[in-house]
Amino acid sequence: MLGGTGKEGSGLALRWASAGHRIVIGSRAPERARETAAAINAQVGVERAEGADNLAAAASGEIVVLAVPFAAQLATLGEVKTALVGKILIDVTVPLMPPQVGRVQLPDGGSAVVRAQAMLGEGVRVVSAFQNVSAEHLKELGHAIDCDVLVCGDDREARAAAIALAQDAGMRAFHAGPLANSVVAEALTSVLITINRQYKVKHSGIAITGLPTEASDV
Amino acid sequence: MLGGTGKEGSGLALRWASAGHRIVIGSRAPERARETAAAINAQVGVERAEGADNLAAAASGEIVVLAVPFAAQLATLGEVKTALVGKILIDVTVPLMPPQVGRVQLPDGGSAVVRAQAMLGEGVRVVSAFQNVSAEHLKELGHAIDCDVLVCGDDREARAAAIALAQDAGMRAFHAGPLANSVVAEALTSVLITINRQYKVKHSGIAITGLPTEASDV
Repeated sequence: MLGGTGKEGSGLALRWASAGHRIVIGSRAPERARETAAAINAQVGVERAEGADNLAAAASGEIVVLAVPFAAQLATLGEVKTALVGKILIDVTVPLMPPQVGRVQLPDGGSAVVRAQAMLGEGVRVVSAFQNVSAEHLKELGHAIDCDVLVCGDDREARAAAIALAQDAGMRAFHAGPLANSVVAEALTSVLITINRQYKVKHSGIAITGLPTEASDV
Repeated sequence: MLGGTGKEGSGLALRWASAGHRIVIGSRAPERARETAAAINAQVGVERAEGADNLAAAASGEIVVLAVPFAAQLATLGEVKTALVGKILIDVTVPLMPPQVGRVQLPDGGSAVVRAQAMLGEGVRVVSAFQNVSAEHLKELGHAIDCDVLVCGDDREARAAAIALAQDAGMRAFHAGPLANSVVAEALTSVLITINRQYKVKHSGIAITGLPTEASDV
């Protein structure tokens, strides 16, 4: 879990630790990663999380999750690139460009995750997911999360891994197409920020409609 | 209603005629526009629709709706450009590029409607809406439409007009930000096509979650 001390990353890590997964929290500051891991273990009541620097965190698991601010995305991947070869990377990056975070401002090429895949090369199977889930929802274990997850990626096994992890964290998740389709989830966060402001709510999200109940498998 | 003989355009026109609006159906082939108008009048039971060519249709109303295939968007606007000055244009264009309609392939600049606004200039207030609503849902009057509408535009009055028309057609609609945010709705259609195929459903859509019931006003 690269960037695991941030709100979104630590929220996901908490949910996964609660579901029984072992987690290595990574951070540029390993001491903060250890603090976050200790807080997660305390909340879950079992020792399932540990802290490390980002490189050690990337080296530790078969599935690596990237949850850092957009401005740190490529630099973080550059630091850990060699440790990701042969693995699945789930990229949570949302290309928000402060101060206008309610306005869609996509990077050149259209998608942050497409840019990450291009940088990492074919040796890393990249999927994107979790861009639209409020960190506040994740933090409260037992709280139902009223937001579906769109999973985009070019590799079927990597998509399936992300969908399973979303389900473990208490969400419905959908195969939403190739990596290029990630534009929707990456840009949707700015729309949800606009809706939060416009309608004076805190955690708007999306649900896929028109499906039979629980059509959430790959 | 430019492109009012197509599935999406005629479905919207039917809903609006049913809600009491007068509609001029436009088409490159005025005879087909008159046939569509007659069918709408027959279904609604009142004479509220008439047919014309696209230029006459654009000249007839204060609010003009564009619902043509992506490949015809700019050519159609070019034909009617002078008739749109001072008006509101609601652009329904989805940048699908067959045969890969399940893959997001946005035009240069990122958004079909941003391109339309650039071509039309500031004299036309452009908003985008209705890209994600299944035409089949629209066709059946009385059938509840389980899909919310994202309305994007830089002009408040134009957004409000589109939101009101969505409500008249039986849908919840949301102010989703400036015209640039239309990327989300334009690209989302390919994600919904992917979900339809993947989960073997016909009319997936989206709903905004996390809101108080009926927070659908501007």
